[in-house]
Amino acid sequence: MEAVATIPARTTAGDPARRSPSADLIARLQRRFGDRLSTSRAVLLQHGTDESAYAPQAPDAVLFVQSTDDVAFVVRACAAERVPIIGFGVGSSVEGHLLAVQGGVCVDFSQMNKVLAVRPGDLTATVEAGVTRGQLNAALAETGFFFSVDPGADASIGGMVATAASGTNTVRYGTMRDNVVNLTVVTATGEVVRTASRARKSSAGYNLTQLYCGSEGTLGLITEATVRLHPHPEAVAAAVVHFPSVRAAVDTVIEAIQLGVPLARAEMLDALTIRAVNAHSRTSLSENPTLFLEFGGTKEQIEAQAEVMREIADSHGGGAFEWALRQEERTRLWTPRHHAYFACLQLKAGSRSLTTDACVPLSELAQCIDETQADIDAHGLLAPVFGHVGDGNFHCLVLVDPADASQNEEAEAFSRRLVARALRHGGTSTGEHGVGLHKMHYLEDEHGREGVALMRALKQALDPDNIFNPGKVVAI
Amino acid sequence: MEAVATIPARTTAGDPARRSPSADLIARLQRRFGDRLSTSRAVLLQHGTDESAYAPQAPDAVLFVQSTDDVAFVVRACAAERVPIIGFGVGSSVEGHLLAVQGGVCVDFSQMNKVLAVRPGDLTATVEAGVTRGQLNAALAETGFFFSVDPGADASIGGMVATAASGTNTVRYGTMRDNVVNLTVVTATGEVVRTASRARKSSAGYNLTQLYCGSEGTLGLITEATVRLHPHPEAVAAAVVHFPSVRAAVDTVIEAIQLGVPLARAEMLDALTIRAVNAHSRTSLSENPTLFLEFGGTKEQIEAQAEVMREIADSHGGGAFEWALRQEERTRLWTPRHHAYFACLQLKAGSRSLTTDACVPLSELAQCIDETQADIDAHGLLAPVFGHVGDGNFHCLVLVDPADASQNEEAEAFSRRLVARALRHGGTSTGEHGVGLHKMHYLEDEHGREGVALMRALKQALDPDNIFNPGKVVAI
Repeated sequence: MEAVATIPARTTAGDPARRSPSADLIARLQRRFGDRLSTSRAVLLQHGTDESAYAPQAPDAVLFVQSTDDVAFVVRACAAERVPIIGFGVGSSVEGHLLAVQGGVCVDFSQMNKVLAVRPGDLTATVEAGVTRGQLNAALAETGFFFSVDPGADASIGGMVATAASGTNTVRYGTMRDNVVNLTVVTATGEVVRTASRARKSSAGYNLTQLYCGSEGTLGLITEATVRLHPHPEAVAAAVVHFPSVRAAVDTVIEAIQLGVPLARAEMLDALTIRAVNAHSRTSLSENPTLFLEFGGTKEQIEAQAEVMREIADSHGGGAFEWALRQEERTRLWTPRHHAYFACLQLKAGSRSLTTDACVPLSELAQCIDETQADIDAHGLLAPVFGHVGDGNFHCLVLVDPADASQNEEAEAFSRRLVARALRHGGTSTGEHGVGLHKMHYLEDEHGREGVALMRALKQALDPDNIFNPGKVVAI
Repeated sequence: MEAVATIPARTTAGDPARRSPSADLIARLQRRFGDRLSTSRAVLLQHGTDESAYAPQAPDAVLFVQSTDDVAFVVRACAAERVPIIGFGVGSSVEGHLLAVQGGVCVDFSQMNKVLAVRPGDLTATVEAGVTRGQLNAALAETGFFFSVDPGADASIGGMVATAASGTNTVRYGTMRDNVVNLTVVTATGEVVRTASRARKSSAGYNLTQLYCGSEGTLGLITEATVRLHPHPEAVAAAVVHFPSVRAAVDTVIEAIQLGVPLARAEMLDALTIRAVNAHSRTSLSENPTLFLEFGGTKEQIEAQAEVMREIADSHGGGAFEWALRQEERTRLWTPRHHAYFACLQLKAGSRSLTTDACVPLSELAQCIDETQADIDAHGLLAPVFGHVGDGNFHCLVLVDPADASQNEEAEAFSRRLVARALRHGGTSTGEHGVGLHKMHYLEDEHGREGVALMRALKQALDPDNIFNPGKVVAI
C-alpha cells in the first residue's frame, strides 16, 4: 500500500463540512498500522462506494483493524481532532450509509473475521464484527446449528447489527434485533463497553444492545457480537404456488400465521418479477403473483404444515401447489426467488435499481401493494415488486437508466410517495435497509419532531463531537 | 378523597434529597384532577409500598390519570418545579421501583385500563398502560389469540414494559422485549412520542421502543403500548417428571432446546420447593428436582414432542413421565408449580422472602444452581429454588423473619454472593425483575464503569432534571 506522501489532495478546500485528518494524525495512525493504513485512491474510492445510487464519497484514509484495541486507538486518535470515523463491513448498504460526507477515516473490519466462540450448549456464538454471515455459517457447518439472519448480501455481522438487518427467514427466526445477545462497542471516548451479559434475557438497566443495533455506526463502533444460533430442522420442505392477485397471496400467508403455521420462509414475487425470472432463466412459470414457501421440522410436521398451507392457498384461489422435500427439488423450486434481483435488473438493459423498503402491518400489506402497483402503472415506471410477506415488508426495484436524471428523479418521487403511503398504512419507511442518507428526511414523518428530537438527544449524549458516521440517521 | 388542606406534614424538613410539590403545584393539579388527586395517608402509603423488603416511602400526592393528555399535563406541571414523578401500575415490583425516595407525585395508571384496539389480522393489540395482562387476555377471550407474557403478578402492561418482564412461557414466546411493537411515552418536556410504527420490524432510526422497555420509569412515562398476540395452539399438553439432580433436569431442557423441541413452558422446582408444595397441598410428590413442562401445537405435534422429551428425560435418569392432554388433568399436574411461591413462604411461619433473580447462559445454569445450593447449605439458609430453566433464569426465595435484622442481612449477603456468581458464569443480576433500588450497586459489576457511564449519559440526555423516578437504575 502507498505511503503517506500519496494522500490525495484534500477535497476539503472550500468545503467547511469536511473534517479531514491532519498530517500529524495520519502519521500517528501509520506508526501503529503500517501498511494496514491505506490512502490509495482505489482503496479510498472503494470504501466511499456502496450499493446505493449515490455518487461515491471517499474517506481520507482507510484502516484495516484487527482488534478492538485497534479500534479504540483509532477512535481516541480521531476524537482528539474531531475527525469522522466510518465503519465498513462489506459495503453492501443500499442507503448511502458509508459515504464519507464529511471526510474522515474509514475503519474496515474485514480483517476482524474470527469466530471467537461457538457455544452449542447456549445456542450462541461470539464473532468479530467483520465475520460475514457466510463465514459464520461455514464455521457452524458441523455443529447442527446455524445463524439465521439472511439479507441479500453476504454482509458482515457488524454491518447487519448496525442496520438491524433481516431477510427471508425473519418470519420464523426474527431480525438481527431478535438474534443479537450482546455487543462489544467502542464509545466516543475510546472506551470499550460490553452492552450486556450472555444471558438469554436481562432487565439490568437500559438496553444498550438494542440501542446500538440499528444505530448505523453513528453512536460508536461495534467490534464483536454474540448472536443466537438455531438448530437445523430435521427436515425442510419447499413449496411454490401462484395466485390470481397479490391480495390472495398475502391473505394466504396472514391466515397461515394466524393459525400458527410456523412458516420458515414466505416470499412473494409479483407477476412482473416472475416475467423477469422467466426471461432470465428461460423458465415458463405462470406470470402471476407467486408465493415461495419453506417449512421446517420433522418430516411429519412439515407434511402437516404443507397440507394446511395447501388448503389455505386453495381457499384463496391458489394454483397448483408444487412441493418438494429433497434438496435438489427444493433448490429448483426456489431458484426463481434466488435469481429475482438480478433477473429484474435485466428487464431493461443497462439499468440500475432504486430499491424501496416499505414495511407495514400485515393487515395493510395487500392494500399497500395494490396502491403501489397502481402508482407504478400510473407513472409508467418499470418496477417489479417482491417481499417478505410474513413481515409486511416489500421491495420495489424501480429500474432507471443511471445516466437519465429525469428517470432518477421520477424514481425518487415514487419512493417519496411510497414512504408516505407506508406511513399512512401504519408502517415504516424502512423495514430492514436502514436510514443512511436516503431516509433521513422521512424520519420526522415517521416519528414526529419529538421522536426525532429524542434520537438527536441520544446521538448528542453518546457522540457529542459527532465523530461517528456524521450526517447519517439524524442531522446534528 | 381528601381536600388539599389534609396534605400530610412534609417529610422534607431536613431532607435535602426530597423534592416535594409546592402548595401551588398541588392546587394546580387539583384544579385539573379534582378527586382524582389524593393525598390521603392511606393512599400515599399504598403507593409507596411494593412487594420488596424495603420500608414504604410515600409520595406527596397520587394522581389517577385517565389519558395521555393527563400524563403530559402532570409532567409539564411537575417539571416546572423539578418534582419527581413515579409511575404506578399494580405495585407488584419486588425491587423497590416505586418507592418515592425523593418524594414527588405518583401517577397511578389503574384508570387507564382500556384495550384500545385488537387487530387479529396483524396479531397485535394496543392498550392503555394500566391494562393488566389478565384484563387484556380477558378482552381477547373470543379471538383465538392471547398475550403471552406472564410474570407472577397480574401486572399492568405498562409496568411489564417498564421492567422488561417475562415469565413461564418466555422459552417459547419471548420476554416483554420480544412482544412490544411500539409505545406511547411522555417525555421530560411533556411531549408525546410514539416510539415506532405498527410494522413488525423497522430499521428507521434508534430503537426508542427498546430504550423505554426496561427503563423502569426513569426516562419517561409509558401511556400506551402495542403488543404482539399469539394464536392459541390447537392443543396443549402438560408433563411432570422428576430427576436425581438439578443438573439432570437442566440438561434435559437444554438438550430439548438444542433439538428444536418447541417447549411452551419448562419450569424446574428443586427438592425443597417440592417439599414445601407437599406440605402446603398435602400431596406426595417425590421430593426431587422436578420439571413442569408444557407443549403446544396440533395433537400429533405435541404427542411427538412429548415422546422426544420422554426419551431425553429417560436418558438423564428422569422418573415417571406424567403426562396429560385434558384441561383438568393438566391443571392438576401444574398445580404444584402454581402454588410454589405461597407454599415456600409457609415453610417457615411468619417469614417473608428475599427473592433473587439471577439469569445465566443455559450451559452454566446447572453449575450455577449447584454452587448456589451449596452456598445455601453452608450458610444454613432456608431458600427453595425454582426457575425458568429454558431461559437460564432461577429464583431463590430466601425466607427470613422480617423482624430479625441479622437474618435480613444474611439474606442480602447471600444475594450479593449470588449476583457475583451469576456474573462469573456470564450472566446477569436480574433476568426479569429489574434494577429498581435493589440492584443499582451491581450494575457496574455487570456493565463496567463505562457501560454505566453510557446509561447515565442516556438518563441525563432524556431526563436532564432527573424528574422521572429519581434514585433508580442509575444514580445521578
